[in-house]
Amino acid sequence: MGMREGGRVGIREVAKKAGVAISSVSRVLSDHPDVSPKMRERVYAAVKALDYEPDVLAQSMRLGKTRIVGFLIGDISNPLFSEIALGAEMALHQDRYAMLIVNSHGRFADDATQLRLLRKRRVDGFIVSLTDENQRDTIAELQGLDCPVVLLDREVPDWRCASVVSDHASGTRAAALHLIELGHTSIGLVAGSENVLPTRARAEALLAECSAHAGVEAHVAYGSYSEAHGEAATEALLAQSKPPTAIIAGSNQILVGVLRAIRRRHLRIPADLSVVTYDRSPLAQFLEPALGTIERDTRQIGHTAGELLVESLRDEKLPPRRIVLPVRFEPAESCGPKPTTSGN
Amino acid sequence: MGMREGGRVGIREVAKKAGVAISSVSRVLSDHPDVSPKMRERVYAAVKALDYEPDVLAQSMRLGKTRIVGFLIGDISNPLFSEIALGAEMALHQDRYAMLIVNSHGRFADDATQLRLLRKRRVDGFIVSLTDENQRDTIAELQGLDCPVVLLDREVPDWRCASVVSDHASGTRAAALHLIELGHTSIGLVAGSENVLPTRARAEALLAECSAHAGVEAHVAYGSYSEAHGEAATEALLAQSKPPTAIIAGSNQILVGVLRAIRRRHLRIPADLSVVTYDRSPLAQFLEPALGTIERDTRQIGHTAGELLVESLRDEKLPPRRIVLPVRFEPAESCGPKPTTSGN
Repeated sequence: MGMREGGRVGIREVAKKAGVAISSVSRVLSDHPDVSPKMRERVYAAVKALDYEPDVLAQSMRLGKTRIVGFLIGDISNPLFSEIALGAEMALHQDRYAMLIVNSHGRFADDATQLRLLRKRRVDGFIVSLTDENQRDTIAELQGLDCPVVLLDREVPDWRCASVVSDHASGTRAAALHLIELGHTSIGLVAGSENVLPTRARAEALLAECSAHAGVEAHVAYGSYSEAHGEAATEALLAQSKPPTAIIAGSNQILVGVLRAIRRRHLRIPADLSVVTYDRSPLAQFLEPALGTIERDTRQIGHTAGELLVESLRDEKLPPRRIVLPVRFEPAESCGPKPTTSGN
Repeated sequence: MGMREGGRVGIREVAKKAGVAISSVSRVLSDHPDVSPKMRERVYAAVKALDYEPDVLAQSMRLGKTRIVGFLIGDISNPLFSEIALGAEMALHQDRYAMLIVNSHGRFADDATQLRLLRKRRVDGFIVSLTDENQRDTIAELQGLDCPVVLLDREVPDWRCASVVSDHASGTRAAALHLIELGHTSIGLVAGSENVLPTRARAEALLAECSAHAGVEAHVAYGSYSEAHGEAATEALLAQSKPPTAIIAGSNQILVGVLRAIRRRHLRIPADLSVVTYDRSPLAQFLEPALGTIERDTRQIGHTAGELLVESLRDEKLPPRRIVLPVRFEPAESCGPKPTTSGN
């Protein structure tokens, strides 16, 4: 152990070997833009000759940079998360950032706690998908950050930062229009929490599209992005005196609950009820009938967030950009004509 | 900025306020076991009075601990990963460890690279799910680590560490026995890579169970844990002169490919072919017919790995433990009698 510690080659030895100042070695190793190719070459030759491994922690102290990006995710068990994280990691990897993931477990109080944890660990930047946009603690924590942040499909009142959002409205309107053209006059949306942007954008789009057509009404059931809410809300919608003849499931997780409720009531899709879902799961292609799907490219969402963060990390003076990614609706056999037997 | 830096309360101020030595404050804040309750109380009173926030990076330098655990995952897009990570995080959270996740993208050469990255960031411990157990670089990197490691469903030649594995053999034998009792005499396994423990354990168990029954043969198609391999291997198995009448899909991702190949050939499950899969996806419950499933508790796997690591971090002298978690087979309608029309 003593040998190992004592034998460790430091930045001082590299500088000596290369015949340059310690600060020059530091600049080369930290990819400082103000370094000549010749200097870079000399330092790397010394690094190689001495088999020097930079001490990342000491480097972090020196530079005030950790080359770690924090990723706050509202719920790591969301099946979309893997693809988003993979996309983000691929973009961050290009600039040699590692990613520290923390999870709010779907509890809004944990958003602030986890942001604080990442801040104390001095990450260089954040990708943030909040559980709830309106918590005072969370907003205060975000406002106190002095490094780049990219918000993922969220907007925080009175606070500007870079963000990547999906064009939820257009996908939702396309689905609603398709159902209206099939004759449906009552459409239900089993939505997630009102305290995040996607839920509000989808609900508003559905309400707008329905109210643009005389005699068509929309029913929105807010709740959580969970199987349990999907099941209970579908039960409640179908128990109404004038139940919807088409239901849109607000997420992969909500879909499982929606389908459970439909199975319990022995309803046929689409003969008795049309069904549309947000987001595509790998096994969905084998469901009978195939589900009409409002979908987005999750890999691209993550990759764009990573790129946007890298851009801000390279130049913190850049004004924050907001990127809107497309959402498209793909109809399928689960969307049929309004049942003629229905009381609506 | 100057204000902020200058105004920052440090460990020195806390020590002064509490009237104790700086080293005592450090011991209290790092949860050193050798601290009296009275000392702890005094220090925390000063911390509270001064609104002191420990500088985690400086603390790391001082203590040589980062309170970060590195999680190397072979492929972050694996849908089981979210649940495993969630379980691990819940266990680590109890001891205030954060988790730094890195991903090998299913490329075996990245295992060593990513381990090196985590080591340079001085994580306190590792949870490791390798893409390939037999790479010399990876093994050298693991052997060079001087902190606790928990291997997840892997074993590395000539190297001992704590591990959490699943009892793949028992689940596989139960599924094989069920198919044999239904009259099948040729069973195919679309397996993943031979270079990871689960694949070998499953293949060996299938071969053992089949050879224990006269006239029953097993066909194992090794490859990657991917849809593409699932599809191609199923095609190849079914194109044999004596094709299997039952196929076991080696993972969620492989299953998608297996089902695609079956759909392309217009085979009916189970009339033409029986199907079993490893691991349960949320939407699988709505597939017709329901799939016989060899399953494990992924949340529990992650949680156990996290607990085992915390145990080792608390006392690095503990001998490494190997924990084996149960795997069970649940039959379903996708397993039917051997087709009478088959040439077998």
